[in-house]
Amino acid sequence: MDTAELTALGQQLRVDSVRASAAAGSGHPTSSMSAADLMAVLLANHLHYDFDRPAHPGNDRFVLSKGHASPLLYAAYKAAGALGDEELLTFRKLGSRLEGHPTPQRLPWVETATGSLGQGLPVGVGIALSVQRLERSEARVWVLCGDSELAEGSVWEASEHAGHERLDNLTVIVDVNRLGQRGPTRHGHDLDAYARRFQAFGWHTVELDGHDVDAVDRAYGEARSTQGQPTAILARTLKGKGVEAVEDREGLHGKPLKEPEEAIAELGGPRDLRVRVHEPSAARMLHSVSTGPLDLPRWERGEKVATRDAYGRALAALGAARSDVVALDGEVSDSTRAEFFAKEHPERFFECYIAEQQLVAAAVGLSTRGWVPYASTFAAFLSRAYDFVRMASVSGAGINLVGSHAGVSIGQDGPSQMGLEDLAMFRAVHGSTVLYPCDAHQTARLVAAMAGLDGIRYLRTSRGDAPVLYGPDEEFPVGGSKVLRSSDRDRLTLVAAGVTVHEALKAADALAGEDVPVRVIDLYSVKPVDRVTLRRAAEETGCLVTVEDHHAEGGLGDAVLEAFSDGRPVPRLARLAVRTMPGSASPDEQLHAAGIDAESIAASARLLVETAVVP
Amino acid sequence: MDTAELTALGQQLRVDSVRASAAAGSGHPTSSMSAADLMAVLLANHLHYDFDRPAHPGNDRFVLSKGHASPLLYAAYKAAGALGDEELLTFRKLGSRLEGHPTPQRLPWVETATGSLGQGLPVGVGIALSVQRLERSEARVWVLCGDSELAEGSVWEASEHAGHERLDNLTVIVDVNRLGQRGPTRHGHDLDAYARRFQAFGWHTVELDGHDVDAVDRAYGEARSTQGQPTAILARTLKGKGVEAVEDREGLHGKPLKEPEEAIAELGGPRDLRVRVHEPSAARMLHSVSTGPLDLPRWERGEKVATRDAYGRALAALGAARSDVVALDGEVSDSTRAEFFAKEHPERFFECYIAEQQLVAAAVGLSTRGWVPYASTFAAFLSRAYDFVRMASVSGAGINLVGSHAGVSIGQDGPSQMGLEDLAMFRAVHGSTVLYPCDAHQTARLVAAMAGLDGIRYLRTSRGDAPVLYGPDEEFPVGGSKVLRSSDRDRLTLVAAGVTVHEALKAADALAGEDVPVRVIDLYSVKPVDRVTLRRAAEETGCLVTVEDHHAEGGLGDAVLEAFSDGRPVPRLARLAVRTMPGSASPDEQLHAAGIDAESIAASARLLVETAVVP
Repeated sequence: MDTAELTALGQQLRVDSVRASAAAGSGHPTSSMSAADLMAVLLANHLHYDFDRPAHPGNDRFVLSKGHASPLLYAAYKAAGALGDEELLTFRKLGSRLEGHPTPQRLPWVETATGSLGQGLPVGVGIALSVQRLERSEARVWVLCGDSELAEGSVWEASEHAGHERLDNLTVIVDVNRLGQRGPTRHGHDLDAYARRFQAFGWHTVELDGHDVDAVDRAYGEARSTQGQPTAILARTLKGKGVEAVEDREGLHGKPLKEPEEAIAELGGPRDLRVRVHEPSAARMLHSVSTGPLDLPRWERGEKVATRDAYGRALAALGAARSDVVALDGEVSDSTRAEFFAKEHPERFFECYIAEQQLVAAAVGLSTRGWVPYASTFAAFLSRAYDFVRMASVSGAGINLVGSHAGVSIGQDGPSQMGLEDLAMFRAVHGSTVLYPCDAHQTARLVAAMAGLDGIRYLRTSRGDAPVLYGPDEEFPVGGSKVLRSSDRDRLTLVAAGVTVHEALKAADALAGEDVPVRVIDLYSVKPVDRVTLRRAAEETGCLVTVEDHHAEGGLGDAVLEAFSDGRPVPRLARLAVRTMPGSASPDEQLHAAGIDAESIAASARLLVETAVVP
Repeated sequence: MDTAELTALGQQLRVDSVRASAAAGSGHPTSSMSAADLMAVLLANHLHYDFDRPAHPGNDRFVLSKGHASPLLYAAYKAAGALGDEELLTFRKLGSRLEGHPTPQRLPWVETATGSLGQGLPVGVGIALSVQRLERSEARVWVLCGDSELAEGSVWEASEHAGHERLDNLTVIVDVNRLGQRGPTRHGHDLDAYARRFQAFGWHTVELDGHDVDAVDRAYGEARSTQGQPTAILARTLKGKGVEAVEDREGLHGKPLKEPEEAIAELGGPRDLRVRVHEPSAARMLHSVSTGPLDLPRWERGEKVATRDAYGRALAALGAARSDVVALDGEVSDSTRAEFFAKEHPERFFECYIAEQQLVAAAVGLSTRGWVPYASTFAAFLSRAYDFVRMASVSGAGINLVGSHAGVSIGQDGPSQMGLEDLAMFRAVHGSTVLYPCDAHQTARLVAAMAGLDGIRYLRTSRGDAPVLYGPDEEFPVGGSKVLRSSDRDRLTLVAAGVTVHEALKAADALAGEDVPVRVIDLYSVKPVDRVTLRRAAEETGCLVTVEDHHAEGGLGDAVLEAFSDGRPVPRLARLAVRTMPGSASPDEQLHAAGIDAESIAASARLLVETAVVP
């Protein structure tokens, strides 16, 4: 398109943004209007995309990081012929595909859900890594950001990652409209301030007037031809551009225009320009899944193996069997044991350094390209990326997250390194799966099973060695459990997972010696939970005691109660969990201090059997 | 101290780091050895600190962001005479004050718990803000960081904040030893790479050899005399410096030296140099608490008021009554209503822009100086700062966090903006308090009550208006609840909080019309939970139904079950919660779609009363 056409298209995108927001009675038209020319030029002259084939491997990828500017995105889809005007006006209504913030669960052209600011670029980096290193296609990744969101540290984690990996297929377009939600940003229209930051992280930068369509056109061309560096285009724009009543004014964020008809007239009235978007370049799916046999590692029963070791070995084996498995780690692969995968499959391993938000975001980006990512760090540090996990769930992304060093049983390093909230955090995510194995074979099987699940899958591993309990051919269905001790005289049921399974078994053996038989359930699938087995145990033994190396809230104890939340009779319950702030001590001392070792379990069980209540 | 003495002191700190780690059998001596000269010069020639009076307002503040280098910190404490050699050798043992990672819960000279990397500088910025803006003292803030942790985005959020606020009382010392845990960092010994980044964010930088004590001495002097900018000292160092077997070698992170006696000999043997640390400059506590009367806002019963509005009004009133209350917000104060406080008390309001990690870290920093911070953003976006909340709990910090726009009831904006995991997230934090008010007076009272609590206190507010249920003088003790409907014929109990209280009341009224009386409990204190009232309701009505605008895991339903986790009989239970991924829709449509509106509640109650089970 030429200058006049591009200008007209920008105005059309503004008009449609105003119309959609007016029809909805809510939304962010002014944030859409500032970026309309940036979007028009991209759509008409630079994006390579087949809207009929969103999965085409040669498609460019566009991420609207400023997800609240969704009216602009939907207006662009309309201009590209991907949706009609009638649907545009369903914006933000019940059942519409056009949500307040875009999500791939509803629209096939959306790469990742946005709306939590500062996440688009990190995910875009993950996509660009896939294209550059694994797919080696000509496809480009374009990310449109707001200026406010550059205050998020995640943007600079992503910039560091992209600069270091020399992702010259990645362009970030920053709509510097100088106004955040509440008022002016820190840097206003100081484009140099942003340019200095991106340059420091190794980026090529271009500064321009974001309403000068020719300058924007040249800048996109420059980005496409820049070698060895990602490009940041810093565009000076005006919020609400084109409508005098709202242009460059404070206090109008997230509000439909009061006089939409007048505004539309001022913008030149409705148009119906159609854009023929450039075709994607030829590309082929490079990562078709190989179907080699899965040869999981095997151990001797009784052998002492840490579940984190089993994770690393199993992942390496899975990587050998499936070419679509990739791994990422946050600079602790020697601890998480992701290093085993890294050594065997270096081309499919991504070192993300100490940047957990970027770690999870890169996994999400890789998942959009069909890869099956496993991202690992200490369980405690996955809390750094909780908002990214939450948004990955909104996206419907399929990613595997693995947290090592769970619980007080890590020992001397102390509470800063102990994952004690991770089960709560992952259980609360919509559609998640939460797995917590206690031995090496169980871990290996679950690592393999995770690859086939939907949504966010979390595996919790332990630092210390534990005896192998199960045989190599035992199966561990997700949603299942294992009954490890059982008799028809059981007085209560111990429900444990991970390290506490071993403590519960010792306690059960001690109690059996006192003629107090108790049942032991290994609840390796914390979510979904095995309702049938838990209900049967409750009926048969009358009392459940949960034991977990996790805080008392949101973990195993709460998970067990999900089996009894439909109005059925509930068994008597007691829960043993970490209720104090640990310090440094040996693993055994930690378990004892927290009251979750075999001795404490047996003591509680005796109390419950004798007096029915634990203090 | 002169060059020779400083050099000797550096060697002593290395020797003591080796000795402490050897005695513990674990720890990070090599990470301590790289920074020993940096620490020696600071302690001997630049730090102003009275170890006998750690609360002295004129004290400089030192934050060891690379908390794993705790042996170095404890060796420095010993050199300053703050602890003895015998205690030094208790490092990492059960009951010792000298934990694997330092925490103020154990040692009075530690400002904030570290060990999750990238948090020391953000908290240091909060401390420096207090000193600069509120205390106006001469005290300086020194933060010692590792190079690996500069990959964390939180470091750049903090750098942006410090640069923008021109915190020239803040110095960050980066121990660029080029080796992370797993191997080399991205930038190795490229000091310029780090300097460019800090400069881009507005910092003064100095590059030097971190083992040249004279250069270090000059750099600290330069930092102290630099006006209008924070200073970053980028020090080229060697991990394991001084011991050939470990110096600058990979694979030795977090490992005690294999031959400690040889290493100690190589370092010149044990020494017992004592440092006379400079006295703090004169300063007075400026923020003594005024005791003006607290004049909380009042509303008419039945008036429609959003709890977020009540939050803002109550906080402004609290700020008028107490001069130690400060507020922070993440660039959404018009939404959270923190703007009411900002307008009345601008000198005590801190705009943190869209950087939630820095928002929480700044609150922690301010709390270390005796302020009572209230930090607000959308509930959903507090998930961005979960690791900071977790570490604040390890610190024992007293901070108030307020999350607005909770739940599906926000309406059209969709799931990216909905806090649906926040109750789970905050409940799982050790020692936390979780409050969720349903009306304006309840909110106002709880806002005031929070100021007097310990630990992490979370208040959840709602976007939409709700009728005022309670009178202005009603009291709402933390750990309590309100029984809003009750009779001796109640067939079950509805337990609700926040927006669902209003739905539960409507449902109860509808059911009463059908001669199905039900009890209604407003469980505004989600943690701690009111066991007595819940148990009585269970005994008297036999069945509890929880209703929450939150995911089914970790929230209100799980909180209620805490009242029944000691082996006592448990009532029949059912829980209504958000179990699907919401889209855009009106608030009423959202509540209905999630099955937590009055109609859904009544339907479930009928089923439970008639058939005892809900599907």
